[in-house]
Amino acid sequence: MTRHVLILGCGFGGLFAAQALRRAPVRITVLDRVNHHLFQPLLYQVATAGLSAPAIAAPIRHILAAQDNATVLLGEAVRIDTSQRTVLLADGETLAYDELIVATGATHSYFGNDAWRAHAPGLKTLEDAFEIRSRILLAFERAERESDPGRRAAWLTFVVIGAGATGVELAGMLAEISRHTLHGEFRRIDPRNARVVLVEAADRILTAYPPDLTDKARLQLERLGVTVWLGRRVTGVDPGGVQLGDDRIAARTVVWAAGVAASPLGASLGVPLDGAGRVLVEPDLAISGHPEVQVIGDLASIRGHEPPVPGIAPAAKQMGRHAANSILCRLRGKAVEPFRYRDAGLLATIGRNAAVAMFGRFKLSGYPAWLLWLVAHIFFLIGFRNRLIVLIEWAWSYWTLQRYARIVVDSEHRED
Amino acid sequence: MTRHVLILGCGFGGLFAAQALRRAPVRITVLDRVNHHLFQPLLYQVATAGLSAPAIAAPIRHILAAQDNATVLLGEAVRIDTSQRTVLLADGETLAYDELIVATGATHSYFGNDAWRAHAPGLKTLEDAFEIRSRILLAFERAERESDPGRRAAWLTFVVIGAGATGVELAGMLAEISRHTLHGEFRRIDPRNARVVLVEAADRILTAYPPDLTDKARLQLERLGVTVWLGRRVTGVDPGGVQLGDDRIAARTVVWAAGVAASPLGASLGVPLDGAGRVLVEPDLAISGHPEVQVIGDLASIRGHEPPVPGIAPAAKQMGRHAANSILCRLRGKAVEPFRYRDAGLLATIGRNAAVAMFGRFKLSGYPAWLLWLVAHIFFLIGFRNRLIVLIEWAWSYWTLQRYARIVVDSEHRED
Repeated sequence: MTRHVLILGCGFGGLFAAQALRRAPVRITVLDRVNHHLFQPLLYQVATAGLSAPAIAAPIRHILAAQDNATVLLGEAVRIDTSQRTVLLADGETLAYDELIVATGATHSYFGNDAWRAHAPGLKTLEDAFEIRSRILLAFERAERESDPGRRAAWLTFVVIGAGATGVELAGMLAEISRHTLHGEFRRIDPRNARVVLVEAADRILTAYPPDLTDKARLQLERLGVTVWLGRRVTGVDPGGVQLGDDRIAARTVVWAAGVAASPLGASLGVPLDGAGRVLVEPDLAISGHPEVQVIGDLASIRGHEPPVPGIAPAAKQMGRHAANSILCRLRGKAVEPFRYRDAGLLATIGRNAAVAMFGRFKLSGYPAWLLWLVAHIFFLIGFRNRLIVLIEWAWSYWTLQRYARIVVDSEHRED
Repeated sequence: MTRHVLILGCGFGGLFAAQALRRAPVRITVLDRVNHHLFQPLLYQVATAGLSAPAIAAPIRHILAAQDNATVLLGEAVRIDTSQRTVLLADGETLAYDELIVATGATHSYFGNDAWRAHAPGLKTLEDAFEIRSRILLAFERAERESDPGRRAAWLTFVVIGAGATGVELAGMLAEISRHTLHGEFRRIDPRNARVVLVEAADRILTAYPPDLTDKARLQLERLGVTVWLGRRVTGVDPGGVQLGDDRIAARTVVWAAGVAASPLGASLGVPLDGAGRVLVEPDLAISGHPEVQVIGDLASIRGHEPPVPGIAPAAKQMGRHAANSILCRLRGKAVEPFRYRDAGLLATIGRNAAVAMFGRFKLSGYPAWLLWLVAHIFFLIGFRNRLIVLIEWAWSYWTLQRYARIVVDSEHRED
C-alpha cells in the first residue's frame, strides 16, 4: 500500500512540499481551511485597494489539478494524535497518515491584550484584508460627513502598529492613498490632511535590515508623508485611539502589524514550543522521536539553527522542499539531511518608487530596489494569468495614481 | 441661492441623472448606501466566479470626482418628508432638498415567504454575489468530502428559481462550471455529474421574449446541461431542498431569481404603490402634487405607460436623463414633458456562445447574439480600465474554460 502523506496548510510551505512530491510513489492529501493558496507578500495591496483578491489568490484545487497523486480537501485540523497517527478535523472527521507535514503558519499576537483585536485588526488572510480595506475607505467617508473638527481629525488619522515589512508597506500605501488617490474626490475634507502614524517599540524600523538601510527606509517613508514614532510601546487600543504611556493618538483606524503567534495546532504535538508558540523541531525539521512528523514554515523553530530562519516566503518554500525530500530519503532507506536556510535576501517596499533590498552584503534602496521588488513579485506570483493581471493593474495605478479595488461591500458604520 | 438636487441611490438611474446635470446651475448631492456604482448586468458573473468584484464596480466618488457641482455621501435614507422637503438618514441626520430624485431600486420578493431567504439567497448586491459564489464553490468541496451517496447528490444539485434573465444566466454558468471549469480537479466526485435545475412558474422561460426566441433559449440551455422545469410553482424552500407541491428536489444550493420588490423607501412618499411596491408616478415621473419629487428606475411605475417600462439598465438611464431634464425645464420656466421609453432592445446571455436578442422586430439567437451581448457589455462598462480588465478576463475564460475568481474568503460550513 502506498504511503499516505498528509499536509496540513497550503501556504508556501505546504504547497511546495506537495509539488516536490509530484513524482513520488505516495498518496498526498492537502488540507486547508480555505479553498485558495494566497500570495501573502502582496496581501497588503488588497488591504489598501490596489489589487483585487483573485489577483493574488488561486484555488488550491486548480494549482494541483494535474498532480494525480494529490487530493485536496477543505477542512480545519484541530488536533494531532502522533501516537495514533491521526488528525482530528473540526467537523469530527479523522484523517490517518503515514507521513505528516504541519504547515499551518502563524497568526497575530496581541501580547495578551486580545481585547485590542476588535479595534486594531491584523493582516493574515483575505478576510483580514477586506476588513482593513473597508475600515480605511469608510473612515474617509465618515470624515466627509462629520462636522465636528475633532471627530473629523480622528477619522482622518491612521495608526499602524509595528514597523516590520507589513507595517511599513501599509503605512506607505496609506500615505499614497491620502496624498494622491483620493485627491480631488471629496468636497468637505481634503484627504491630503490625513495623518499616517507608524508606531514601533524598537528604536528603528525594519529591524531585520542593517541600520544604514533602515535609516534610508525611514527617510523614504517620511518623504511619502508618514510620521514615524520609534521606541514607543503601545499600552492601550480602544475605539477612539491608541494609548502610548501618557501620550494618546486619537484615531478611528488602527492596524496591527506587530506580533506573530504560531498556529495553536502545534501545541497538540506534545513537544516543547518557543516563546511565540512555534514548535521546536530537530535540525531535520522532524519532531523529537517522530521522524514521520515534520513541521515547516512560520510554525517551526529549528533547534540550533543560527541565525534563526526568517518568517518569509522563500524560507517556507525551502522547508517545504526539504520536508518532501526527507520523505523520499526515508522511502529509499537513505539518511535524512539537516535543513540549512540558504539566504534568499530581504526585500521590502515602502511606496511608489521606494524600497530597500539586501542580498548578502549587497544593498539597494530607492528606485532600483523598488524596480527589483516589482520584478521579483511579478515573477513569483502563481500562474501566468495572475501575473498579467497584476502587471496591468500596477501599470494602471502607477500612471494614474488610481487604485483599482476601492470597493467596500458592506456599509456597516462603526459605533461613534 | 442655487437649488439643491438630492439624488437617492446611485444605480444607473441616479448616476445618469447626476451626470446629466453636470453643467446645470444646481448643487447636487448623491447619496448611496455603498461606496460604488455597480454594473448590475454582469453581477451574475461575480456570483459564478467569472469576474472579480472591482471589475464591475467603480467608486461613485471617483466617477463624479471631476463634476464640481456634485457631492457624494455614503448613507442610507430611511424616510422622506415631502411636506418639509427633507430626507431622514439611518444615522439620524436630515438632508434638505429643493429637488428630489428617488432612485433606490428594487430588492427580492419571496412572495411573503421571507423564511426562504436564508436557504435561497437572491442576487442584487456584491454581498449577495459573494454569498452565492461561496455557496456554489463550497458545495463541490462538501461533496468531495461526503461519503453517503444521497447526501453527496444533494450537494451536487443546484436549483435556480425563476427563469428571467438572471435565472437563465446563473443556470447557464452553473452548468459551465460543473461541465468544464471544475473538470479534473476532484478525486472522489465527478463535477460533471452535478445537476442544475431551473424552475419556472410560467410555461416558458424569458417571458419578456416572444415564444420562438424563448424556445431557442430553452434548447440552448438544455444543450449546456440545464434541466428546465416549466409551470412548476415552488411551495417550500428549506436547508435540504425545494418543494414543488408533491415533488421535491433534494438540493443544498438554491438561488432565488424570481420576485422583485421595490425599495421600501417609496412607501414614505405617501402616494399609491403598485402590487410590487413600486411608486405610481405621473407620466412626467413626478409624484402627484409634488413636481419637485421624481421617482425613477425600478422603483417607478408610470401611470398610463403602455407597455410597462421594463426593469433594465437602459430604461433606468433614460429615466435618469429625463428627470434631470425636467429639473432644467422648470429652472427655465419651461413645461415638463412626459416620459416615453424608447425601446433599447432585449439581450440575454445563456452561456458560452449562446444568447438571445431582440430589437423591435429584429431577432437573433445563438453565437451571433452572444457576440453582440459581449460587445454591448464591454462597451457599456464604466471606465476604460474596467473594460480592459473584463476583456482580458473573458478572453482567458473563453480559451481556457477557467474561471478567474474562484476565491472563497470564508470556509463557514453550513449545517448538515
